[in-house]
Amino acid sequence: MIFASDNWAGASQPVMDAMVRHNTGAAPAYGTDPLTLKVRDRFREIFETDDLTVWFTATGTAANALTMAACARPGGLVLTSDIAHVLCDEWGATEFFSHGMKMVPVETRNGRISAQALSRELAKHPAGSRFGTPVAVSLTQASECGTVYPLDELAALTGVAKERDLVCHMDGARFANALVHLGCSPAEMTWKAGIDALSFGGTKNGCWCAEAIVVFNQDALRDLAAHRSRAGHLFSKSRFVAAQLDGYLENGHWLDSARHANAMASRLAEGLTASGHALAHPVEANEVFPVLDFATIARLREAGAAFYEWPEIEAGEGTSGVRLVTSFATTSEEVARFLEIAAG
Amino acid sequence: MIFASDNWAGASQPVMDAMVRHNTGAAPAYGTDPLTLKVRDRFREIFETDDLTVWFTATGTAANALTMAACARPGGLVLTSDIAHVLCDEWGATEFFSHGMKMVPVETRNGRISAQALSRELAKHPAGSRFGTPVAVSLTQASECGTVYPLDELAALTGVAKERDLVCHMDGARFANALVHLGCSPAEMTWKAGIDALSFGGTKNGCWCAEAIVVFNQDALRDLAAHRSRAGHLFSKSRFVAAQLDGYLENGHWLDSARHANAMASRLAEGLTASGHALAHPVEANEVFPVLDFATIARLREAGAAFYEWPEIEAGEGTSGVRLVTSFATTSEEVARFLEIAAG
Amino acid sequence: MIFASDNWAGASQPVMDAMVRHNTGAAPAYGTDPLTLKVRDRFREIFETDDLTVWFTATGTAANALTMAACARPGGLVLTSDIAHVLCDEWGATEFFSHGMKMVPVETRNGRISAQALSRELAKHPAGSRFGTPVAVSLTQASECGTVYPLDELAALTGVAKERDLVCHMDGARFANALVHLGCSPAEMTWKAGIDALSFGGTKNGCWCAEAIVVFNQDALRDLAAHRSRAGHLFSKSRFVAAQLDGYLENGHWLDSARHANAMASRLAEGLTASGHALAHPVEANEVFPVLDFATIARLREAGAAFYEWPEIEAGEGTSGVRLVTSFATTSEEVARFLEIAAG
Amino acid sequence: MIFASDNWAGASQPVMDAMVRHNTGAAPAYGTDPLTLKVRDRFREIFETDDLTVWFTATGTAANALTMAACARPGGLVLTSDIAHVLCDEWGATEFFSHGMKMVPVETRNGRISAQALSRELAKHPAGSRFGTPVAVSLTQASECGTVYPLDELAALTGVAKERDLVCHMDGARFANALVHLGCSPAEMTWKAGIDALSFGGTKNGCWCAEAIVVFNQDALRDLAAHRSRAGHLFSKSRFVAAQLDGYLENGHWLDSARHANAMASRLAEGLTASGHALAHPVEANEVFPVLDFATIARLREAGAAFYEWPEIEAGEGTSGVRLVTSFATTSEEVARFLEIAAG
Repeated sequence: MIFASDNWAGASQPVMDAMVRHNTGAAPAYGTDPLTLKVRDRFREIFETDDLTVWFTATGTAANALTMAACARPGGLVLTSDIAHVLCDEWGATEFFSHGMKMVPVETRNGRISAQALSRELAKHPAGSRFGTPVAVSLTQASECGTVYPLDELAALTGVAKERDLVCHMDGARFANALVHLGCSPAEMTWKAGIDALSFGGTKNGCWCAEAIVVFNQDALRDLAAHRSRAGHLFSKSRFVAAQLDGYLENGHWLDSARHANAMASRLAEGLTASGHALAHPVEANEVFPVLDFATIARLREAGAAFYEWPEIEAGEGTSGVRLVTSFATTSEEVARFLEIAAG
Repeated sequence: MIFASDNWAGASQPVMDAMVRHNTGAAPAYGTDPLTLKVRDRFREIFETDDLTVWFTATGTAANALTMAACARPGGLVLTSDIAHVLCDEWGATEFFSHGMKMVPVETRNGRISAQALSRELAKHPAGSRFGTPVAVSLTQASECGTVYPLDELAALTGVAKERDLVCHMDGARFANALVHLGCSPAEMTWKAGIDALSFGGTKNGCWCAEAIVVFNQDALRDLAAHRSRAGHLFSKSRFVAAQLDGYLENGHWLDSARHANAMASRLAEGLTASGHALAHPVEANEVFPVLDFATIARLREAGAAFYEWPEIEAGEGTSGVRLVTSFATTSEEVARFLEIAAG
Repeated sequence: MIFASDNWAGASQPVMDAMVRHNTGAAPAYGTDPLTLKVRDRFREIFETDDLTVWFTATGTAANALTMAACARPGGLVLTSDIAHVLCDEWGATEFFSHGMKMVPVETRNGRISAQALSRELAKHPAGSRFGTPVAVSLTQASECGTVYPLDELAALTGVAKERDLVCHMDGARFANALVHLGCSPAEMTWKAGIDALSFGGTKNGCWCAEAIVVFNQDALRDLAAHRSRAGHLFSKSRFVAAQLDGYLENGHWLDSARHANAMASRLAEGLTASGHALAHPVEANEVFPVLDFATIARLREAGAAFYEWPEIEAGEGTSGVRLVTSFATTSEEVARFLEIAAG
Repeated sequence: MIFASDNWAGASQPVMDAMVRHNTGAAPAYGTDPLTLKVRDRFREIFETDDLTVWFTATGTAANALTMAACARPGGLVLTSDIAHVLCDEWGATEFFSHGMKMVPVETRNGRISAQALSRELAKHPAGSRFGTPVAVSLTQASECGTVYPLDELAALTGVAKERDLVCHMDGARFANALVHLGCSPAEMTWKAGIDALSFGGTKNGCWCAEAIVVFNQDALRDLAAHRSRAGHLFSKSRFVAAQLDGYLENGHWLDSARHANAMASRLAEGLTASGHALAHPVEANEVFPVLDFATIARLREAGAAFYEWPEIEAGEGTSGVRLVTSFATTSEEVARFLEIAAG
């Protein structure tokens, strides 16, 4: 009963198979191998555009921070949600890579920034402000609360951002989970909605360590390749990241994995609600945030369930907010057992 | 006939097997998993000391540059060989991670700095110099010319360095190749010889992407864990690097691979010499630097041999310096065929 | 009627006289001249300790940011008031100089952080948090609202900070104004109250551009001299900053100037209150924050008064918060005329 | 007999007078005052172009390093002379401000890089090199050896640089000394010769601390104002730098000072040659580099002469290279006495 995080899983079978399959023969180093080029082309197909560059990394923090490095300006501000991973969980990577841009938290509801909230925050930072000048906005899709921005909200947000010439970044650590929830195309959820650059996550959804920076607006970012190299994020045996993504993207495996994880989360949500537990946020991707009483939590822990309590959630006396994350590796049996114990 | 680089190979079978083997079940993220702890302990055994910390990374550039970040001081100087990878081939990573330390090249002979040369260079930079203050020295073992520092030379170099309180770093991208050449213990080649921190390379010798920063002198480096995290070099599914190193270090596989690569290089050297080709450097590890005439080069290329010409080598008219690198994946057949063609 | 800022004035007569007086003959460059040493000794007298180093700079932003650079750690957090100059008005200097430390705003009342608020904020950032690790706290004395921390509040704040091993920094851009308000000694307001390093401001109180970083806790900061030099903040003709401070500190001129400025502010406060205008903050130094109706503001502007409206102040309909700053150069006549017009 | 450095002098009388003269009344802060605008316009007149921006700083190191910050790219290289101040005497400021660009020394003769040497060095760094990519070249005019680039050599150098799209920077710490030597116009020595940005030095030639970054090619530099602000190099009472430059540029004072300093240097050179002392470099500006025997050096020191021995100069046994620097403050009497003693 592993619901601690989707990064507690290993690699999915198709990803592992691809790694084994591509581990033959010699290949040129540093990203010039045929497999890297093949996967790059696959990204162009998936996103329905040739005006796209893609840069592999092995961690989401690298993908996010390198993107910010490539649009950094002195005294710049990056607006994010007040609970964004890029703000709260990356050890100051963006501040470091961008040589000191300031992160500005924008208030959220269920993990999502509204266009109004973004607008209000931007109004506090007119051009020339000594606090700093807005440079970029980073939106997490799916959000850290397991919710998903609908396409019209994304468009409204990037619309507000473009009025101030901001670079629009999407942190897609759980990109696939959001995509299958919306049922739209990758293009619709990104460049058609005004996104300039995407951190495309593979790790949480079945890769061992494979992410990609997908750039739709080449003018918005500068020297991204050089930023990646000098940060030690270009791999000599780079086909190793490409191999993972090859397996990941093949035959819709990535979408199947995300659908499975989302379905497991939905089932958790339904079951918990049915047995009287409240949910702090709507469940739209692969995360569930129930409020559980202490006795239930104790029973679950005793039975070996792994999950984190989530202090950000306001909970009444004798109860605690909890975060449950599902993944490609989550089984129906785990979910059923968890729900049984939670039902008391 | 792949002699372009040891990073053109994939992963060795034992490494690949370990990756598959450890890809089961769930594990805590960010380096707190049991496998990471197990491999850390394995490092303590191998280096015969418990006063050792080890931090996994996936690229050698990250290992080198993060080490430099952890000992960085404003206006600091890092002395290296004038052909050091850390100076010439890492896109300015050390300068970036160390917030602008200056790299100072020291003259080399066959890729090795002498204690005298280091001493002379240090004398140019007295304390308080406005050019900068020496902070660290980085020695590559085996060197970029395929030579190996003997233990007494290492001790002499670190002795000179310690007089100025320098941090002594070893870039061990080809650590195993040097080790089996000397036939000494890992401890003798590192902390017993005055090394404070080691970039322990696994990638070139059979891993897909596994390196480790091994710190012997805990006082010399500061906040290394935090430097690694905020640089995006801590993996969520961190067991994946540990798994590679587990397979790498098991049953002496790493030493066997290095012995094989070195033997292939020796055979190349002997064969080329026998057929009248000169060598620019002694062959002590897994690199061979012959000077070949244009006709020979053309014949080899035509037969499909992959290698780089090496402009750093001075070569007479009608000839060119060439670098040949062997690896665990090099076969006797490749070597024999190469020699046959080279013999004309 | 110049109440826009205390940095709209030039240099006071004693400061200007000292600049002229010391502009004779030759002197060694880069801070090794006798005048620099003399003024350094003067600081030791004034702060009643020989365990003090002092580093001149020419801007307050440099003084603040260099201090933060010298205590920076990767992933570090600097806690400040939510309206602190160092956070809101220095173009991201601290973020830049500290290589990306994150500024964390702490809520204030009348510009002051309480020990309770600091404690609450620190509790949100336990050791090892991926958001970041608290490294320093910066307190502005006098605060940006013209209020002054009493000695016991300072001690309480540094007490809370020391429990987490924070470096305690005082931004003393208006140090003299705070000092004469409290009527205590410079030692009492700094190291005796737990302050590790002080940005000692001279510019706003009569210098043209003279600040000093005064370090009481030598272990807390590292390589400050080197940070200053490589940032271009060490002057070749460094006696020029020393000369200003020589004039500034002579015969109690700095305290007289601050007393005058404070007195002018008090008179403004009393007069405005007497004519029915409310004040947003207590007046304890040289700043007054009245809430004025639009008609009054218009009358004052028409008469040539220079001041800024202050949107941070909540004001009822038809009114606006205003900031008035007095300095050594403010005259009784200016104040009287302003009050007369404001009285309607 | 002060020949140690031109920065051992104080401020010249016209500069000091201007400081006193402009120290009246109030002025808006942070570079928006009328005097700053007036001096900016004066620069446009002097350089005969309106397509020029100018940013005041107080140190030459700041001017140089901020310029490099504004053209910095990841993995970038800055080519300079091997004895350039920006490389050897600024504590790593350029490396820091540019977030780790690497300085590449180019060999010099009498302090000057030749177009051929620049070309040769550039050839070593083709696009995409992992050592780094050339971004800028910095030329010191007058050079650190007291020589001056003729206009045709400047044009040849910038011509070579432009082929690789380098930003051409001139470190003009001794700009006026070079200008009066060549007898050309400021425009001819800068933008007409291909210079994109100039560090215009005032300090060594009569100011207390006044430099200016003059940008001719607005596209080559980015966000210079923001770089300056966040580095703490924008002064609140900014008219104080403007005041110095106002006095400096008025009535040709700057050119008169430079002519005087150059004349004093010429006289030193002639006198020393006449009494049999060799010169290491031609004397074209305000520096003289004689080779003196130990007895002469001892006699001069005993008589109170201040100067530095210059180990960079190769000198025979019993002799030592020496640097003599003249300034606006050097008197004929000092020179005469020095020559008399040196003559033995």
